[in-house]
Amino acid sequence: MDVRFAVNVSPKPGILDPQGRAVEGSLDHLGIAGVSAVRVGRRVELTVSAADEAGARAVVERLAAELLSNPLIEAYDVEVLGAASSTDSTESPSAAGAPA
Amino acid sequence: MDVRFAVNVSPKPGILDPQGRAVEGSLDHLGIAGVSAVRVGRRVELTVSAADEAGARAVVERLAAELLSNPLIEAYDVEVLGAASSTDSTESPSAAGAPA
Repeated sequence: MDVRFAVNVSPKPGILDPQGRAVEGSLDHLGIAGVSAVRVGRRVELTVSAADEAGARAVVERLAAELLSNPLIEAYDVEVLGAASSTDSTESPSAAGAPA
Repeated sequence: MDVRFAVNVSPKPGILDPQGRAVEGSLDHLGIAGVSAVRVGRRVELTVSAADEAGARAVVERLAAELLSNPLIEAYDVEVLGAASSTDSTESPSAAGAPA
C-alpha cells in the first residue's frame, strides 16, 4: 500500500529562527498587527510504499530523523495524509506531487 | 483572543522542486526504498491576536497570500492549531515558539 505523509520540521524552542524574525519584521510594511511568535520550518510531503501503514510509518520516521531534520536544533512530527494511489491522484491540492 | 495557526506552503503541481529531488537522491545512500513524490515546502506557525477566530483567520489568510507564499508557484493552506496563550504555553511541543 502507498501512504502519503507530511513531516513538519520546526526549530526547537529557544533556537534562533532568523526566518521567523524576518517575517515579523515585514509585518509593519504590510500594515498587519497582532501577529507574534512566528516560527518558520519545513514541511516535506512524501509517499511511502510498504506492506502496511506501520511499515510505511517506520520508513518515514527514519527518514525524518536521519535526513529531513537536524535533531540538535529541530523537532519534527509526522502526519498521515492518507492512502495515496501510485499516481498521486488522491492527494490534497497543495500536495499533488507531479513527480519530476 | 490569541489563535495559533500553521500555514503550509508547497510548490504547486508541475513546478520544479529541487529540494524534493535532492531528498529523493539521498534515499539510496540511506538504504531507504519505496519513497516517492517528495515535495518540500515551508511551514510557518504564528499566533494572531484578534477579536475572534474569524478576524484572526482573515489576518493569517492575508499574510499567507501576500508574504508567506509566492502565488505564481506555490499553494498554501491554513491550519488552526488552537487557542494560544500569550506566553505560548499551550502550543504543541514542535511549535513552542519562544519569541526571540
